[in-house]
Amino acid sequence: MSTNQNIKVAVDAVVFGYTSREGLSVLLIKRNIDPFKGSWALPGGLVGNQETLEDAVQRELSEETGVNINYLEQLYSFGQQGRDPRNRVISITYYGLVKPDGFELKANTDAADVKWFNIKKLPKLAFDHQAILQVARTRLQNKMQYEPVGFELLEEKFPFSELEKLYMAVLDRHIDRRNFKKKVSKFGFLEETNEKQLLDGAGRPGNLYRFNEQKYFELKEQGISFEI
Amino acid sequence: MSTNQNIKVAVDAVVFGYTSREGLSVLLIKRNIDPFKGSWALPGGLVGNQETLEDAVQRELSEETGVNINYLEQLYSFGQQGRDPRNRVISITYYGLVKPDGFELKANTDAADVKWFNIKKLPKLAFDHQAILQVARTRLQNKMQYEPVGFELLEEKFPFSELEKLYMAVLDRHIDRRNFKKKVSKFGFLEETNEKQLLDGAGRPGNLYRFNEQKYFELKEQGISFEI
Repeated sequence: MSTNQNIKVAVDAVVFGYTSREGLSVLLIKRNIDPFKGSWALPGGLVGNQETLEDAVQRELSEETGVNINYLEQLYSFGQQGRDPRNRVISITYYGLVKPDGFELKANTDAADVKWFNIKKLPKLAFDHQAILQVARTRLQNKMQYEPVGFELLEEKFPFSELEKLYMAVLDRHIDRRNFKKKVSKFGFLEETNEKQLLDGAGRPGNLYRFNEQKYFELKEQGISFEI
Repeated sequence: MSTNQNIKVAVDAVVFGYTSREGLSVLLIKRNIDPFKGSWALPGGLVGNQETLEDAVQRELSEETGVNINYLEQLYSFGQQGRDPRNRVISITYYGLVKPDGFELKANTDAADVKWFNIKKLPKLAFDHQAILQVARTRLQNKMQYEPVGFELLEEKFPFSELEKLYMAVLDRHIDRRNFKKKVSKFGFLEETNEKQLLDGAGRPGNLYRFNEQKYFELKEQGISFEI
Protein backbone atom coordinates (compact mmCIF):
# COMPACT_ATOMS: atom_id res chain seq x y z
CA MET A 1 0.00 0.00 0.00
CA SER A 2 1.59 3.20 -1.21
CA THR A 3 1.38 5.95 1.38
CA ASN A 4 2.46 8.83 -0.82
CA GLN A 5 -0.56 8.75 -3.09
CA ASN A 6 -1.08 12.07 -4.84
CA ILE A 7 -4.52 11.80 -6.40
CA LYS A 8 -7.48 14.14 -5.96
CA VAL A 9 -11.13 13.08 -5.99
CA ALA A 10 -13.77 15.17 -7.73
CA VAL A 11 -17.42 14.73 -8.57
CA ASP A 12 -19.05 15.94 -11.79
CA ALA A 13 -22.73 15.94 -12.67
CA VAL A 14 -24.56 15.49 -15.95
CA VAL A 15 -27.97 17.06 -15.29
CA PHE A 16 -30.60 16.44 -17.94
CA GLY A 17 -33.69 18.59 -18.26
CA TYR A 18 -36.66 18.38 -20.56
CA THR A 19 -39.30 20.83 -21.72
CA SER A 20 -41.62 20.32 -24.69
CA ARG A 21 -40.44 23.69 -25.98
CA GLU A 22 -36.69 22.97 -25.82
CA GLY A 23 -36.50 19.20 -25.89
CA LEU A 24 -33.72 17.39 -24.02
CA SER A 25 -31.11 19.70 -22.54
CA VAL A 26 -28.01 19.56 -20.35
CA LEU A 27 -26.97 21.96 -17.58
CA LEU A 28 -23.53 23.47 -18.20
CA ILE A 29 -21.40 26.09 -16.46
CA LYS A 30 -18.85 28.50 -17.90
CA ARG A 31 -15.60 28.08 -15.97
CA ASN A 32 -14.43 31.07 -13.99
CA ILE A 33 -11.01 29.60 -13.20
CA ASP A 34 -8.09 27.98 -14.97
CA PRO A 35 -7.61 25.54 -16.56
CA PHE A 36 -10.17 25.95 -19.33
CA LYS A 37 -11.22 29.35 -17.97
CA GLY A 38 -14.07 30.61 -20.16
CA SER A 39 -14.95 27.12 -21.46
CA TRP A 40 -18.24 25.37 -20.84
CA ALA A 41 -18.07 22.35 -18.57
CA LEU A 42 -20.12 20.02 -16.39
CA PRO A 43 -20.78 21.38 -12.90
CA GLY A 44 -18.55 19.72 -10.31
CA GLY A 45 -15.50 20.02 -8.09
CA LEU A 46 -13.38 18.40 -5.42
CA VAL A 47 -15.00 16.32 -2.68
CA GLY A 48 -14.75 17.79 0.82
CA ASN A 49 -13.04 15.64 3.43
CA GLN A 50 -16.20 15.38 5.50
CA GLU A 51 -18.94 15.05 2.89
CA THR A 52 -20.39 12.05 1.09
CA LEU A 53 -20.03 11.85 -2.68
CA GLU A 54 -23.75 12.64 -3.15
CA ASP A 55 -23.51 15.64 -0.80
CA ALA A 56 -20.53 16.90 -2.79
CA VAL A 57 -22.54 16.71 -6.03
CA GLN A 58 -25.50 18.52 -4.50
CA ARG A 59 -23.27 21.21 -3.01
CA GLU A 60 -21.44 21.83 -6.29
CA LEU A 61 -24.75 22.00 -8.17
CA SER A 62 -26.14 24.39 -5.63
CA GLU A 63 -23.03 26.62 -5.70
CA GLU A 64 -22.42 26.65 -9.43
CA THR A 65 -25.93 26.42 -10.88
CA GLY A 66 -28.64 27.06 -8.24
CA VAL A 67 -30.24 23.71 -9.11
CA ASN A 68 -31.18 20.98 -6.62
CA ILE A 69 -32.04 17.53 -7.85
CA ASN A 70 -34.14 14.67 -6.59
CA TYR A 71 -33.11 12.05 -9.06
CA LEU A 72 -29.37 11.51 -8.83
CA GLU A 73 -27.54 8.34 -9.76
CA GLN A 74 -23.89 7.40 -9.87
CA LEU A 75 -22.69 7.01 -13.44
CA TYR A 76 -19.04 5.99 -13.68
CA SER A 77 -15.60 6.93 -12.33
CA PHE A 78 -13.14 8.40 -14.80
CA GLY A 79 -9.52 8.00 -13.79
CA GLN A 80 -7.26 8.17 -16.83
CA GLN A 81 -4.17 10.27 -16.43
CA GLY A 82 -3.97 13.66 -18.07
CA ARG A 83 -7.72 14.30 -17.91
CA ASP A 84 -6.89 17.29 -15.70
CA PRO A 85 -3.71 19.20 -16.62
CA ARG A 86 -3.03 20.14 -12.99
CA ASN A 87 -3.04 16.98 -10.89
CA ARG A 88 -4.18 13.44 -11.21
CA VAL A 89 -7.90 13.92 -10.56
CA ILE A 90 -10.32 11.02 -10.52
CA SER A 91 -13.86 12.12 -11.21
CA ILE A 92 -16.76 10.14 -9.80
CA THR A 93 -19.62 11.19 -12.05
CA TYR A 94 -23.36 11.30 -11.45
CA TYR A 95 -26.33 11.95 -13.64
CA GLY A 96 -29.51 13.68 -12.61
CA LEU A 97 -32.91 14.53 -14.03
CA VAL A 98 -34.83 17.75 -13.35
CA LYS A 99 -37.62 19.90 -14.70
CA PRO A 100 -35.76 23.06 -15.81
CA ASP A 101 -38.72 25.38 -15.25
CA GLY A 102 -38.54 24.81 -11.49
CA PHE A 103 -35.23 26.66 -11.05
CA GLU A 104 -33.72 30.07 -11.41
CA LEU A 105 -30.17 29.48 -12.61
CA LYS A 106 -27.48 31.21 -10.62
CA ALA A 107 -23.73 30.85 -11.24
CA ASN A 108 -21.33 31.28 -8.34
CA THR A 109 -17.90 30.18 -6.98
CA ASP A 110 -16.05 28.47 -9.87
CA ALA A 111 -18.78 29.27 -12.41
CA ALA A 112 -19.05 32.58 -14.30
CA ASP A 113 -22.27 31.56 -16.05
CA VAL A 114 -24.75 28.70 -16.21
CA LYS A 115 -27.16 27.67 -18.97
CA TRP A 116 -29.29 24.86 -20.31
CA PHE A 117 -28.00 23.66 -23.68
CA ASN A 118 -30.09 21.64 -26.08
CA ILE A 119 -28.47 18.21 -26.46
CA LYS A 120 -28.15 18.80 -30.20
CA LYS A 121 -26.42 22.17 -29.79
CA LEU A 122 -23.66 21.60 -27.28
CA PRO A 123 -20.55 23.80 -27.12
CA LYS A 124 -17.06 22.30 -26.95
CA LEU A 125 -16.52 21.15 -23.38
CA ALA A 126 -13.54 21.34 -21.01
CA PHE A 127 -11.55 18.29 -19.84
CA ASP A 128 -13.07 14.91 -20.88
CA HIS A 129 -16.57 16.20 -20.20
CA GLN A 130 -17.79 15.45 -23.71
CA ALA A 131 -16.99 11.77 -23.16
CA ILE A 132 -18.66 11.81 -19.73
CA LEU A 133 -21.77 13.38 -21.21
CA GLN A 134 -21.90 10.69 -23.90
CA VAL A 135 -21.73 7.93 -21.28
CA ALA A 136 -24.54 9.64 -19.35
CA ARG A 137 -26.71 9.96 -22.42
CA THR A 138 -26.29 6.29 -23.29
CA ARG A 139 -27.10 5.34 -19.69
CA LEU A 140 -30.26 7.45 -19.76
CA GLN A 141 -31.31 5.92 -23.08
CA ASN A 142 -30.82 2.39 -21.77
CA LYS A 143 -32.46 3.12 -18.44
CA MET A 144 -35.55 4.69 -19.99
CA GLN A 145 -36.23 1.49 -21.82
CA TYR A 146 -36.67 -0.58 -18.70
CA GLU A 147 -37.49 1.98 -15.97
CA PRO A 148 -39.90 4.88 -16.32
CA VAL A 149 -37.31 7.44 -15.17
CA GLY A 150 -38.67 9.77 -17.80
CA PHE A 151 -41.55 10.66 -15.52
CA GLU A 152 -39.05 12.70 -13.48
CA LEU A 153 -38.77 15.01 -16.47
CA LEU A 154 -42.48 15.67 -17.03
CA GLU A 155 -45.03 17.75 -15.16
CA GLU A 156 -47.24 15.89 -12.69
CA LYS A 157 -50.03 15.70 -15.27
CA PHE A 158 -49.22 15.58 -18.96
CA PRO A 159 -50.85 14.79 -22.28
CA PHE A 160 -49.83 11.40 -23.66
CA SER A 161 -48.14 13.09 -26.60
CA GLU A 162 -45.66 14.70 -24.16
CA LEU A 163 -44.47 11.29 -23.02
CA GLU A 164 -43.99 10.26 -26.64
CA LYS A 165 -42.05 13.42 -27.43
CA LEU A 166 -39.85 12.91 -24.38
CA TYR A 167 -39.01 9.35 -25.41
CA MET A 168 -38.25 10.45 -28.97
CA ALA A 169 -36.00 13.27 -27.70
CA VAL A 170 -34.05 11.01 -25.34
CA LEU A 171 -33.81 7.98 -27.61
CA ASP A 172 -33.12 10.27 -30.57
CA ARG A 173 -35.28 8.23 -32.93
CA HIS A 174 -38.83 8.02 -34.13
CA ILE A 175 -41.10 5.77 -32.10
CA ASP A 176 -44.26 4.21 -33.43
CA ARG A 177 -47.17 5.97 -31.74
CA ARG A 178 -49.67 3.10 -31.51
CA ASN A 179 -47.12 0.55 -30.49
CA PHE A 180 -45.69 2.86 -27.81
CA LYS A 181 -49.13 3.61 -26.36
CA LYS A 182 -49.95 -0.09 -26.26
CA LYS A 183 -46.69 -0.96 -24.48
CA VAL A 184 -46.90 1.83 -21.90
CA SER A 185 -50.60 1.26 -21.20
CA LYS A 186 -50.04 -2.45 -20.64
CA PHE A 187 -47.96 -1.84 -17.52
CA GLY A 188 -50.72 -0.04 -15.70
CA PHE A 189 -48.65 2.61 -13.93
CA LEU A 190 -49.86 5.37 -16.21
CA GLU A 191 -53.22 6.73 -15.05
CA GLU A 192 -55.63 8.66 -17.22
CA THR A 193 -57.07 11.61 -15.23
CA ASN A 194 -60.41 13.32 -15.85
CA GLU A 195 -58.67 16.55 -16.72
CA LYS A 196 -58.33 17.70 -20.28
CA GLN A 197 -56.01 20.12 -22.02
CA LEU A 198 -56.21 21.73 -25.45
CA LEU A 199 -53.17 20.65 -27.43
CA ASP A 200 -51.43 22.52 -30.21
CA GLY A 201 -52.88 21.51 -33.53
CA ALA A 202 -55.60 19.32 -32.04
CA GLY A 203 -59.26 20.16 -32.59
CA ARG A 204 -60.48 18.98 -29.21
CA PRO A 205 -58.88 18.82 -25.76
CA GLY A 206 -56.96 15.64 -24.90
CA ASN A 207 -56.92 13.83 -21.56
CA LEU A 208 -54.06 14.33 -19.14
CA TYR A 209 -52.14 11.41 -17.67
CA ARG A 210 -50.40 10.89 -14.38
CA PHE A 211 -47.68 8.49 -13.26
CA ASN A 212 -48.81 6.18 -10.45
CA GLU A 213 -45.55 5.60 -8.59
CA GLN A 214 -47.03 3.23 -6.01
CA LYS A 215 -48.42 1.03 -8.75
CA TYR A 216 -45.03 1.07 -10.47
CA PHE A 217 -43.24 -0.09 -7.32
CA GLU A 218 -45.84 -2.82 -6.78
CA LEU A 219 -45.24 -4.11 -10.30
CA LYS A 220 -41.50 -3.90 -9.80
CA GLU A 221 -41.69 -5.93 -6.60
CA GLN A 222 -43.64 -8.58 -8.46
CA GLY A 223 -40.73 -8.72 -10.90
CA ILE A 224 -42.77 -7.22 -13.73
CA SER A 225 -40.46 -4.99 -15.68
CA PHE A 226 -41.30 -2.18 -17.97
CA GLU A 227 -39.91 -2.35 -21.47
CA ILE A 228 -40.27 -0.03 -24.43
CA MET B 1 -12.06 24.00 -4.64
CA SER B 2 -10.51 22.75 -1.44
CA THR B 3 -6.77 22.23 -1.82
CA ASN B 4 -6.19 20.32 1.38
CA GLN B 5 -8.17 17.26 0.40
CA ASN B 6 -7.20 14.25 2.48
CA ILE B 7 -8.85 11.34 0.72
CA LYS B 8 -7.23 8.16 -0.58
CA VAL B 9 -8.36 6.23 -3.64
CA ALA B 10 -8.43 2.44 -3.69
CA VAL B 11 -9.70 -0.22 -6.04
CA ASP B 12 -11.33 -3.47 -4.93
CA ALA B 13 -12.34 -6.42 -7.09
CA VAL B 14 -15.18 -8.90 -6.85
CA VAL B 15 -13.99 -11.84 -8.93
CA PHE B 16 -16.58 -14.51 -9.67
CA GLY B 17 -15.64 -18.00 -10.75
CA TYR B 18 -17.71 -20.97 -11.73
CA THR B 19 -17.14 -24.69 -11.88
CA SER B 20 -19.83 -27.33 -12.20
CA ARG B 21 -18.32 -29.03 -9.15
CA GLU B 22 -18.32 -25.97 -6.88
CA GLY B 23 -20.95 -23.72 -8.41
CA LEU B 24 -20.59 -19.94 -8.22
CA SER B 25 -17.67 -18.77 -6.11
CA VAL B 26 -15.86 -15.57 -5.14
CA LEU B 27 -12.13 -14.97 -4.80
CA LEU B 28 -11.16 -13.71 -1.32
CA ILE B 29 -7.90 -12.95 0.45
CA LYS B 30 -7.00 -13.19 4.12
CA ARG B 31 -5.58 -9.84 5.21
CA ASN B 32 -1.97 -9.86 6.35
CA ILE B 33 -2.07 -6.30 7.71
CA ASP B 34 -4.17 -4.18 10.02
CA PRO B 35 -6.94 -3.15 10.10
CA PHE B 36 -8.92 -6.40 9.96
CA LYS B 37 -5.70 -8.45 10.00
CA GLY B 38 -6.70 -12.12 9.69
CA SER B 39 -10.10 -11.31 8.20
CA TRP B 40 -11.21 -12.33 4.73
CA ALA B 41 -11.65 -9.48 2.26
CA LEU B 42 -11.91 -8.60 -1.41
CA PRO B 43 -8.55 -8.26 -3.14
CA GLY B 44 -7.61 -4.59 -3.67
CA GLY B 45 -5.52 -1.67 -2.54
CA LEU B 46 -4.49 1.92 -3.18
CA VAL B 47 -4.14 3.19 -6.74
CA GLY B 48 -0.60 4.11 -7.78
CA ASN B 49 -0.03 7.68 -8.93
CA GLN B 50 0.95 6.57 -12.43
CA GLU B 51 -1.43 3.68 -13.10
CA THR B 52 -4.94 3.58 -14.53
CA LEU B 53 -7.75 2.24 -12.36
CA GLU B 54 -7.91 -0.97 -14.41
CA ASP B 55 -4.14 -1.47 -14.15
CA ALA B 56 -4.39 -1.01 -10.38
CA VAL B 57 -7.04 -3.75 -10.17
CA GLN B 58 -5.00 -6.14 -12.31
CA ARG B 59 -1.83 -5.45 -10.28
CA GLU B 60 -3.58 -6.00 -6.95
CA LEU B 61 -5.14 -9.22 -8.24
CA SER B 62 -1.82 -10.42 -9.51
CA GLU B 63 0.01 -9.55 -6.25
CA GLU B 64 -2.59 -10.82 -3.80
CA THR B 65 -4.13 -13.76 -5.65
CA GLY B 66 -2.09 -14.80 -8.70
CA VAL B 67 -5.20 -14.43 -10.89
CA ASN B 68 -5.38 -12.41 -14.13
CA ILE B 69 -8.74 -11.59 -15.62
CA ASN B 70 -10.04 -10.87 -19.09
CA TYR B 71 -13.51 -9.77 -18.21
CA LEU B 72 -13.34 -6.78 -15.89
CA GLU B 73 -15.99 -4.13 -15.51
CA GLN B 74 -16.35 -1.12 -13.25
CA LEU B 75 -19.04 -1.68 -10.65
CA TYR B 76 -19.56 1.34 -8.37
CA SER B 77 -17.59 3.78 -6.22
CA PHE B 78 -18.08 3.54 -2.48
CA GLY B 79 -17.26 6.71 -0.60
CA GLN B 80 -19.08 6.81 2.71
CA GLN B 81 -17.06 7.94 5.65
CA GLY B 82 -15.85 5.41 8.18
CA ARG B 83 -15.70 2.55 5.70
CA ASP B 84 -11.97 2.41 6.48
CA PRO B 85 -10.98 3.10 10.10
CA ARG B 86 -7.65 4.70 9.08
CA ASN B 87 -8.32 7.40 6.49
CA ARG B 88 -11.11 8.50 4.27
CA VAL B 89 -10.71 5.92 1.49
CA ILE B 90 -12.94 5.92 -1.58
CA SER B 91 -13.03 2.53 -3.25
CA ILE B 92 -13.69 2.29 -6.95
CA THR B 93 -14.85 -1.28 -7.33
CA TYR B 94 -14.73 -3.67 -10.27
CA TYR B 95 -16.14 -7.07 -10.94
CA GLY B 96 -14.57 -9.78 -13.00
CA LEU B 97 -15.32 -13.27 -14.27
CA VAL B 98 -12.82 -16.12 -14.57
CA LYS B 99 -12.57 -19.88 -14.89
CA PRO B 100 -11.01 -20.87 -11.55
CA ASP B 101 -9.29 -23.99 -12.92
CA GLY B 102 -6.98 -21.86 -15.06
CA PHE B 103 -5.05 -20.41 -12.11
CA GLU B 104 -2.79 -21.47 -9.31
CA LEU B 105 -3.70 -19.22 -6.38
CA LYS B 106 -0.80 -17.44 -4.74
CA ALA B 107 -1.11 -14.91 -1.89
CA ASN B 108 1.51 -12.21 -1.51
CA THR B 109 2.06 -8.59 -0.30
CA ASP B 110 -0.99 -7.64 1.82
CA ALA B 111 -2.53 -11.12 1.57
CA ALA B 112 -1.64 -14.03 3.87
CA ASP B 113 -3.92 -16.46 2.05
CA VAL B 114 -6.26 -16.64 -0.92
CA LYS B 115 -9.20 -18.95 -1.61
CA TRP B 116 -12.30 -19.44 -3.68
CA PHE B 117 -15.42 -19.38 -1.50
CA ASN B 118 -18.75 -20.75 -2.61
CA ILE B 119 -21.22 -17.84 -2.80
CA LYS B 120 -23.46 -19.65 -0.30
CA LYS B 121 -20.65 -20.18 2.23
CA LEU B 122 -18.97 -16.82 2.61
CA PRO B 123 -17.02 -15.84 5.74
CA LYS B 124 -17.56 -12.50 7.46
CA LEU B 125 -15.76 -9.88 5.40
CA ALA B 126 -13.63 -6.86 6.35
CA PHE B 127 -14.70 -3.22 5.79
CA ASP B 128 -17.93 -2.84 3.74
CA HIS B 129 -16.90 -5.69 1.46
CA GLN B 130 -20.07 -7.68 2.14
CA ALA B 131 -22.13 -4.78 0.75
CA ILE B 132 -19.83 -4.41 -2.27
CA LEU B 133 -20.11 -8.11 -2.97
CA GLN B 134 -23.90 -7.89 -2.84
CA VAL B 135 -23.93 -5.03 -5.36
CA ALA B 136 -21.66 -7.07 -7.65
CA ARG B 137 -23.85 -10.13 -7.40
CA THR B 138 -26.97 -8.16 -8.29
CA ARG B 139 -25.14 -6.56 -11.22
CA LEU B 140 -24.05 -9.99 -12.50
CA GLN B 141 -27.59 -11.33 -12.16
CA ASN B 142 -29.04 -8.39 -14.10
CA LYS B 143 -26.33 -8.45 -16.71
CA MET B 144 -26.67 -12.18 -17.39
CA GLN B 145 -30.26 -11.65 -18.34
CA TYR B 146 -29.49 -9.38 -21.26
CA GLU B 147 -25.86 -10.18 -22.16
CA PRO B 148 -24.36 -13.65 -22.36
CA VAL B 149 -21.50 -12.81 -20.00
CA GLY B 150 -21.88 -16.25 -18.52
CA PHE B 151 -19.94 -17.72 -21.39
CA GLU B 152 -16.81 -16.24 -19.78
CA LEU B 153 -17.34 -18.69 -16.95
CA LEU B 154 -17.67 -21.88 -19.00
CA GLU B 155 -15.15 -23.97 -20.91
CA GLU B 156 -14.91 -23.32 -24.64
CA LYS B 157 -17.19 -26.30 -25.33
CA PHE B 158 -19.81 -27.35 -22.84
CA PRO B 159 -22.90 -29.51 -22.57
CA PHE B 160 -26.12 -27.50 -22.62
CA SER B 161 -26.88 -28.61 -19.08
CA GLU B 162 -23.77 -26.73 -17.90
CA LEU B 163 -25.18 -23.45 -19.17
CA GLU B 164 -28.45 -24.16 -17.35
CA LYS B 165 -26.61 -24.96 -14.14
CA LEU B 166 -24.57 -21.78 -14.42
CA TYR B 167 -27.69 -19.65 -14.85
CA MET B 168 -29.39 -21.33 -11.92
CA ALA B 169 -26.29 -20.81 -9.74
CA VAL B 170 -25.97 -17.13 -10.61
CA LEU B 171 -29.65 -16.26 -10.59
CA ASP B 172 -30.12 -18.41 -7.48
CA ARG B 173 -33.43 -19.80 -8.66
CA HIS B 174 -34.83 -22.66 -10.66
CA ILE B 175 -35.17 -22.05 -14.37
CA ASP B 176 -37.52 -23.95 -16.62
CA ARG B 177 -35.38 -26.20 -18.80
CA ARG B 178 -37.46 -26.22 -22.00
CA ASN B 179 -38.22 -22.51 -21.88
CA PHE B 180 -34.57 -21.66 -21.26
CA LYS B 181 -33.36 -23.81 -24.16
CA LYS B 182 -35.94 -22.23 -26.45
CA LYS B 183 -34.92 -18.69 -25.48
CA VAL B 184 -31.19 -19.26 -25.76
CA SER B 185 -31.46 -21.18 -29.05
CA LYS B 186 -33.59 -18.43 -30.58
CA PHE B 187 -30.72 -15.94 -30.51
CA GLY B 188 -28.46 -18.08 -32.65
CA PHE B 189 -25.16 -17.35 -30.93
CA LEU B 190 -25.00 -20.76 -29.34
CA GLU B 191 -23.58 -23.36 -31.74
CA GLU B 192 -24.03 -27.09 -31.44
CA THR B 193 -20.72 -28.84 -32.22
CA ASN B 194 -20.31 -32.41 -33.53
CA GLU B 195 -18.52 -33.41 -30.34
CA LYS B 196 -20.24 -35.44 -27.69
CA GLN B 197 -19.57 -35.99 -24.02
CA LEU B 198 -20.92 -38.54 -21.60
CA LEU B 199 -22.77 -36.73 -18.84
CA ASP B 200 -23.29 -37.83 -15.26
CA GLY B 201 -26.51 -39.72 -14.96
CA ALA B 202 -27.22 -39.72 -18.69
CA GLY B 203 -27.43 -42.96 -20.64
CA ARG B 204 -25.94 -41.63 -23.87
CA PRO B 205 -23.43 -38.89 -24.65
CA GLY B 206 -24.82 -35.38 -25.16
CA ASN B 207 -23.67 -32.84 -27.73
CA LEU B 208 -21.30 -30.07 -26.75
CA TYR B 209 -22.08 -26.42 -27.48
CA ARG B 210 -19.89 -23.44 -28.22
CA PHE B 211 -20.48 -19.71 -27.96
CA ASN B 212 -20.19 -17.92 -31.33
CA GLU B 213 -18.93 -14.50 -30.26
CA GLN B 214 -18.89 -13.03 -33.77
CA LYS B 215 -22.52 -13.98 -34.26
CA TYR B 216 -23.38 -12.43 -30.91
CA PHE B 217 -21.74 -9.11 -31.83
CA GLU B 218 -23.52 -9.13 -35.20
CA LEU B 219 -26.87 -9.57 -33.46
CA LYS B 220 -25.97 -6.88 -30.95
CA GLU B 221 -25.12 -4.41 -33.73
CA GLN B 222 -28.49 -5.12 -35.29
CA GLY B 223 -30.02 -4.11 -31.98
CA ILE B 224 -31.21 -7.64 -31.24
CA SER B 225 -30.80 -8.17 -27.55
CA PHE B 226 -30.59 -11.36 -25.67
CA GLU B 227 -33.05 -11.88 -22.87
CA ILE B 228 -33.58 -14.76 -20.49
